[in-house]
Amino acid sequence: MLGRDYSGQNCSIARALEVVGERWTLLILRDAFLGITRFDGFARKLGIAENVLARRLETLTEAGVLERRPYQGRRYDYVLTERGRELFPVVVSLMRWGDEHLSPDGPPALIRHAGCGGEIGTGARCEACGATVGPDDVEWLWGPGSGRLERVFHPRRERAAPAA
Amino acid sequence: MLGRDYSGQNCSIARALEVVGERWTLLILRDAFLGITRFDGFARKLGIAENVLARRLETLTEAGVLERRPYQGRRYDYVLTERGRELFPVVVSLMRWGDEHLSPDGPPALIRHAGCGGEIGTGARCEACGATVGPDDVEWLWGPGSGRLERVFHPRRERAAPAA
Repeated sequence: MLGRDYSGQNCSIARALEVVGERWTLLILRDAFLGITRFDGFARKLGIAENVLARRLETLTEAGVLERRPYQGRRYDYVLTERGRELFPVVVSLMRWGDEHLSPDGPPALIRHAGCGGEIGTGARCEACGATVGPDDVEWLWGPGSGRLERVFHPRRERAAPAA
Repeated sequence: MLGRDYSGQNCSIARALEVVGERWTLLILRDAFLGITRFDGFARKLGIAENVLARRLETLTEAGVLERRPYQGRRYDYVLTERGRELFPVVVSLMRWGDEHLSPDGPPALIRHAGCGGEIGTGARCEACGATVGPDDVEWLWGPGSGRLERVFHPRRERAAPAA
């Protein structure tokens, strides 16, 4: 796994970056956490070259972060695995740091603990009840930095069917 | 800040990745959390080209993650700012994910809550006392995946003098 890129680093951070450290990969995961599962959905949201997106999805699938599930013959849903869902705290921690230091108009998006309503903070921990939550336990809202008046955000239309 | 790279993404994750998403940057931060402050220290530990390291340190300094402090005339310590220390949960969360999924011989390194002795988990939270800790509150040990018998790890010899 370490191989060609961060070779010589016997380090779990380097190994994690071999999987998720390439350009766009953590934004692909953000969109997977939002409920996107289809190639076209990722492509539309990210606006990146299709060959780059295809390579990134392949890397994530080979690493067991996403799982391909066929639909309509030769098309696929890319669905987060348990291993993939466990990256939620990494993405949330980055987001909260960016909210704090790089978003002067306020957070573009907010993550709330579904049911509880608490805000999800660093480490994907609910600031109200203290639970550590996964991506299926939350709802996303537009924040003050989004420039939008409405707050409702992404209804997870694309959610693939649960595994059998 | 968003500018040329992840432009079009009004997103705190994208903004954070503009600062820390380039190759090697999160490993530079790992070493800063270990107490390294000097160009030669980073270069020795990472084994990367000096021009790449210089560019990364410049980006981190411009973004307010590191602060340059002169010593011996024209040399500098690169010291974590408060903003930089707040990236600790991101790096620890990546590390713990890599420990869990990509380090079959066990974690190469362990992070312990100094004084308390608890292991530091995802989100930089102490698994014993529940405190969220910063990089100055921990000690690092070699773990079972390091292939070493001794456990003592990096005495932070390079720690720069505290700010006046």
